[in-house]
Amino acid sequence: MDSTTLLYDIVKKYGNKNIIALSFFYGSRHNDYELPLAQQSCQKLKVEQKIINIKNIFNQFNSALLKHKDSEKIPEGHYEDKSMKKTVVPFRNGILLSMAVGLAESVGADTVFYGAHGGDHFIYPDCRIEFEKTFSEAATLGTFNKVKIKAPYRNINKIGILKKGIKLKVNYSLTHTCYNPSKKGSCGKCGACQERLEAFNKLKIKDPKIYVR
Amino acid sequence: MDSTTLLYDIVKKYGNKNIIALSFFYGSRHNDYELPLAQQSCQKLKVEQKIINIKNIFNQFNSALLKHKDSEKIPEGHYEDKSMKKTVVPFRNGILLSMAVGLAESVGADTVFYGAHGGDHFIYPDCRIEFEKTFSEAATLGTFNKVKIKAPYRNINKIGILKKGIKLKVNYSLTHTCYNPSKKGSCGKCGACQERLEAFNKLKIKDPKIYVR
Repeated sequence: MDSTTLLYDIVKKYGNKNIIALSFFYGSRHNDYELPLAQQSCQKLKVEQKIINIKNIFNQFNSALLKHKDSEKIPEGHYEDKSMKKTVVPFRNGILLSMAVGLAESVGADTVFYGAHGGDHFIYPDCRIEFEKTFSEAATLGTFNKVKIKAPYRNINKIGILKKGIKLKVNYSLTHTCYNPSKKGSCGKCGACQERLEAFNKLKIKDPKIYVR
Repeated sequence: MDSTTLLYDIVKKYGNKNIIALSFFYGSRHNDYELPLAQQSCQKLKVEQKIINIKNIFNQFNSALLKHKDSEKIPEGHYEDKSMKKTVVPFRNGILLSMAVGLAESVGADTVFYGAHGGDHFIYPDCRIEFEKTFSEAATLGTFNKVKIKAPYRNINKIGILKKGIKLKVNYSLTHTCYNPSKKGSCGKCGACQERLEAFNKLKIKDPKIYVR
């Protein structure tokens, strides 16, 4: 929802010629649903899509994480925090943003837009605005094109994004949100589905996704 | 020379237990000579080595670069600058350092050391000290472990590094410098070999590498 809305938003502002939509292939089950839909959105908007395959990189990280789990320092906090932390790829946003900056630099672009928003889970340090701001400064210093990172949805939540998307006529059947999808549809029960459905309910709009409930 | 000297230096200061030596496999011919020697240095120092294979990532970047070369903005400058720029992986240090930060975070480490030094080619924006400093701040903000980037050789050149290495009894036959190596030895003619030989000559020490001249 977030990145697709952002793509429509940017295409409306800047046209579809000087934009590359960057997707990452992790090799997760989620990806198998998400990437073909992202591709269809790009085709609809006539935006070039680039998919960077990072499956092997993140596999290598995970193996390191498992191997060294005894030495992992877990900060004070709730049990949920600890278990959430275990599922995260360390410095994920730093790694993905650095690849996006590299791609921008390689094609002569000067801006990386991404769909981080006010409802994001701030337990992850690399999701916080201070990180984003400083990383953007580093990217500008580290590139010929003086690439900046921009997250225009930083100060709005899912409902705010959906409001924008409705105005932009985003086709939300071509977005994927569910963490536990099957061929029959989205689960409607996971945290991601709940948050999505809540936004549609608040705005009294029917979500065009198929849910298996 | 730089990173091997740094490894000896760090092992002397901090011991060999809490260190991982991180190497990257690009798939270049240079790598075939460099990585087995790095492995031998690690074995000698009893330091764990981790090799992250990034061949496919950088392949994907290069293809983007070639495809979009018409849109690439080349800044004013000498011809050498332009041709150098074409050989660079865009934002390479940003991408490699972000992976190193991720690895550090995943194993509970709080410092990434790297062998950038005063003789590095400052034409590349991501080799400059301002980039490094700001990127380090971003890494600290973006990680639970508050990971820092440190480049202790920032203010010394190749001769200064060799001086340190001699004191640390670095085995320089287990380092690789040449850009144009063959099975018979280093070329002795490329810029990298010249810079290395100059340092050994200045200190009146014999380079233990085999040169084919």
